[in-house]
Amino acid sequence: MTSANTLLAELELIGRDPSTGGYHRPAWGAATLELREWFAGAAAARGLELSEDGNGNQFARWGSGPGALLIGSHLDSVPDGGPLDGPLGVTSAFAALDSLRADGFVPARPVVVANFSDEEGARFGVACLGSRLATGAITPASALALRDDTGTTLAEAMTQAGRDPRAAGPAAWLAEVSEFVELHVEQGRSLIHQDAAVGVASAIWPHGRWRLEVCGQGNHAGATLMADRHDPMLTYAATVLAARRVAIESGQRATFGKLAVHPGSTNSIPSRVDAWLDARAESEAELERLVAAILNQARRAADLDGTTVSLQPESITAGVTFDPGLRHRLATRLGAPLLPTGAGHDAGILSARMPTAMLFVRNPTGVSHAPSESAEPDDIDAGVAALALAIRELA
Amino acid sequence: MTSANTLLAELELIGRDPSTGGYHRPAWGAATLELREWFAGAAAARGLELSEDGNGNQFARWGSGPGALLIGSHLDSVPDGGPLDGPLGVTSAFAALDSLRADGFVPARPVVVANFSDEEGARFGVACLGSRLATGAITPASALALRDDTGTTLAEAMTQAGRDPRAAGPAAWLAEVSEFVELHVEQGRSLIHQDAAVGVASAIWPHGRWRLEVCGQGNHAGATLMADRHDPMLTYAATVLAARRVAIESGQRATFGKLAVHPGSTNSIPSRVDAWLDARAESEAELERLVAAILNQARRAADLDGTTVSLQPESITAGVTFDPGLRHRLATRLGAPLLPTGAGHDAGILSARMPTAMLFVRNPTGVSHAPSESAEPDDIDAGVAALALAIRELA
Repeated sequence: MTSANTLLAELELIGRDPSTGGYHRPAWGAATLELREWFAGAAAARGLELSEDGNGNQFARWGSGPGALLIGSHLDSVPDGGPLDGPLGVTSAFAALDSLRADGFVPARPVVVANFSDEEGARFGVACLGSRLATGAITPASALALRDDTGTTLAEAMTQAGRDPRAAGPAAWLAEVSEFVELHVEQGRSLIHQDAAVGVASAIWPHGRWRLEVCGQGNHAGATLMADRHDPMLTYAATVLAARRVAIESGQRATFGKLAVHPGSTNSIPSRVDAWLDARAESEAELERLVAAILNQARRAADLDGTTVSLQPESITAGVTFDPGLRHRLATRLGAPLLPTGAGHDAGILSARMPTAMLFVRNPTGVSHAPSESAEPDDIDAGVAALALAIRELA
Repeated sequence: MTSANTLLAELELIGRDPSTGGYHRPAWGAATLELREWFAGAAAARGLELSEDGNGNQFARWGSGPGALLIGSHLDSVPDGGPLDGPLGVTSAFAALDSLRADGFVPARPVVVANFSDEEGARFGVACLGSRLATGAITPASALALRDDTGTTLAEAMTQAGRDPRAAGPAAWLAEVSEFVELHVEQGRSLIHQDAAVGVASAIWPHGRWRLEVCGQGNHAGATLMADRHDPMLTYAATVLAARRVAIESGQRATFGKLAVHPGSTNSIPSRVDAWLDARAESEAELERLVAAILNQARRAADLDGTTVSLQPESITAGVTFDPGLRHRLATRLGAPLLPTGAGHDAGILSARMPTAMLFVRNPTGVSHAPSESAEPDDIDAGVAALALAIRELA
């Protein structure tokens, strides 16, 4: 029997940047392939049956037959991400199985540990690609044509990793699974405020990514009068500040975390700025209003600057209310508080197809998607115990 | 005898991006090496003596002896630059020699065509590296250690191009040159307003580049409340707008044309934004005030955002007043207007060591450092005629 803390320690050097302490584990990259090998090894060491669907989602099965209980999470990360977003759920799943087996527990139906492929969407721009493909939430044709920043398509990346991209798409295993429970580090401070090591998710906010393109006129940074400029960087900056204002006023969230400046030269006024807006809101209607208000502010700035703007959705994910019966049963059994989250997860995608629940483990920094994301060892053990209890309850 | 228009046509495919029509000719890159070969060929075709100093500056000499008149410009470009910034001066120099020789003119002293290395500073961050090294305005140790965006040092780039970086530094040819006249496309609209094909430079504004570093706290874009954020992108955006305001109020110029966002992920609040400020002003005192005011605004924004900012100079170039006798003589002889410029040039660097002048050729778009930079063929011919007249006058 191995604790999740010990299992996490096995992963701590994979894809880690020693200068920041953060992790770089893009989908189908070398670090992620190494993590898949680790998953295969963890399955083999426990005598679990290893399988992989056509989308790169990995499974380790305990027991056979239909109506399986799925647990697990993902092993990829955002650039310079933390150690727990994803891996905590996978290691806790193995640790919970170990604990149940050590206690002599025999489930009435199969329990399957999952490692979903490309949950973060950090490489190809669309989050939860593995679960979206498996459930048909995205077509293989549109997913496989997505490109990373170097121009490589998902199809090419899968081929380079020895997979056949023609196998991508709706997966047969869905018919054999009855519920999914994903354990995840909390990405916020609710559990600190509620003085609880573990919580149960109530809902995921609707969210999406949009590409803002601002076009102006490239020119010389020294010789061009301020009055003669059509500088897209100015429009972009005004849009960033407007997005904050609109998000605060409406109680929602808006972020610009990535951009590309053309030509990107110190002594040139840019000709174009491409930026990515991440927006989240408590309802679809609020999300639509939020994004429309940001675009409206961007257009006003563009009119003043003599530039043009457009905003194209790259992915929009509907809100999720987790299965009320399941979340109530778990929250009651665990004595754990219910909390909503602004973060997307594979559990959100799978919830369209089966009863799904999430457990959150307290994060003392409240920080996620960054190196300081963390959880206390005792809280990690409490998460494993809660997951084991959930398995006893459900399987 | 070949016109400058014909010579420019020989270069039109080198380093050109067909999708934008702009040029990518970074120092010591493949396109620039091809342009150096073209320069060597142009010298050979005219029986001029080719030489190169330890900094990569190329020379083609007509005649021998001391007290040479230097003409020419550079062949590198900013990313996605125009066809004329640099090449117009080099091709016009060869065309002017051709025209004088066709007329049977024999100069009383040598006339030398120059191709200065890395004028734009687009690759290693410091403009006019070739002329700065030759004149001792920068030490070889600090220049050779400069890195491009991929981490390659100037020393490594020179070595890869077959040069010995130990030869970089103050150049012997300086002692043999008496004056420098650089012809350049105008980077603005003064000559349009003055209805003149050719002008003479009066001065170059003081200018410089500073690196703005804004540090905050990386976090999850969906799960972090707006109120809990320390987002350096917000501080950066406020600084961009403040820089415009300050520049307009003071009548100076400020530009942000390049930045790097860490980690640069759509669903992560950035942990750090590095941005480069290009600032220009009519006097050193005004430039200092401009940059201090921008930093002050950045600090105020950082205090509100819970981030930190620092601003480090990467290169600062003092203002240049071109030799009053020489500029007056040329303006009178050519019947050309005098005009100042906000753009830096090798002529500005050499002016610290010898009488130096610049000729500008009218640019109908007023745009520079961008694909639409242009000059009418007749104006290009007028520039060559003016340069030939200057050579008759001076050599």
